[in-house]
Amino acid sequence: MAPMKVHGIPPSTATMRVLACLLEKELEFELVPVNMQAGEHKKEPFLSLNPFGQVPAFEFEDLKLFESRAITQYLVHEYPEKGTPMIWKDSKKMAYLGVWLEVETQQFDPAAGKLVWELGIKPMFGMPVSPEVVEENETKLGKVLDVYEKRLTESKYLGGESFTLADLHHLPNIHYLMNSQVKKLFESRPHVSAWIADITARPSWSKVVAMLQKH
Amino acid sequence: MAPMKVHGIPPSTATMRVLACLLEKELEFELVPVNMQAGEHKKEPFLSLNPFGQVPAFEFEDLKLFESRAITQYLVHEYPEKGTPMIWKDSKKMAYLGVWLEVETQQFDPAAGKLVWELGIKPMFGMPVSPEVVEENETKLGKVLDVYEKRLTESKYLGGESFTLADLHHLPNIHYLMNSQVKKLFESRPHVSAWIADITARPSWSKVVAMLQKH
Repeated sequence: MAPMKVHGIPPSTATMRVLACLLEKELEFELVPVNMQAGEHKKEPFLSLNPFGQVPAFEFEDLKLFESRAITQYLVHEYPEKGTPMIWKDSKKMAYLGVWLEVETQQFDPAAGKLVWELGIKPMFGMPVSPEVVEENETKLGKVLDVYEKRLTESKYLGGESFTLADLHHLPNIHYLMNSQVKKLFESRPHVSAWIADITARPSWSKVVAMLQKH
Repeated sequence: MAPMKVHGIPPSTATMRVLACLLEKELEFELVPVNMQAGEHKKEPFLSLNPFGQVPAFEFEDLKLFESRAITQYLVHEYPEKGTPMIWKDSKKMAYLGVWLEVETQQFDPAAGKLVWELGIKPMFGMPVSPEVVEENETKLGKVLDVYEKRLTESKYLGGESFTLADLHHLPNIHYLMNSQVKKLFESRPHVSAWIADITARPSWSKVVAMLQKH
């Protein structure tokens, strides 16, 4: 059986999210590089995998998926017995996990994603950083992290008492931000800081970071 | 048994999303108004329901949820036999539905939400509309709708051959935008236009619109 294919590049936060999930689920896969500088993601055949022209895209047998969080959701539900479950069987626990999955998307990612762009990606390409955008989004992210700090005093992880998909989805943005001035926002909140130390120490995540460093 | 409680107001798109789902699932509920002008959503006891201080919040017995899409996901998975299923039993069909749920969140809502704010909400409060924000987001939304037009030539609904949660999640933003200049972006794309006519004609949605008009 051919392995699962992830079309993407390690520096892309959305690609990293899918790689982390595959490693955590102990599923075999192949990373198929996309030459984004040549604009391969905006042309066929890539557009047949993702009509929005964004990495990653996922292929397995006749299944073609895109949107990183849809791919991870598919993997955890399709392979509940492989690797780390990252979801719950109990429907109430699953309801709360669903809330924190949405919080990552709706509250954390909008601010964190803009900061990753300004402080993590733009400098790589010599693009000028906007101090106004940084300041606005640091303020927004700080407010989100205040809620996280409270949540993490009540629950060891965001989605419950063990590591779930809600935690995993945060890892790529956190990786970039912990290598930037935004680090202070995490470090000034003790429960957030302990949570980050815990989730970034997972062997699956170390493998993703190694793929990024080799890239 | 006490009915489910939705804390929110009908003009809020996120509240409308949850109301539409409850009506489609034929579940009994009570809408508990939140006095947003008095800032009730930024104070206790509301903050205990949603620490981010946003409507809606959902309460049923000892379950307290927030984030509209997490609430609808809970409802469709917890009550598969009630009303319209809106999800699939087959895991591959569910994987594709998952993709289009994420497309709504990541591609449609960012542009549509900003246009609803500029053209639907700001005028209600006499706030000045930003033509630059409108233009930028009309361009973005147009590109998203080009992908939708193609998808809807291949599939009657976004999430498969019948109405699913992926379609439902679009309804609140579409309602506001069909009452604005953005209407032209939908009407110029025949499959998108037919899809909107179909999903907005559902009895559940008419009830949500009636609640909005009575508000």
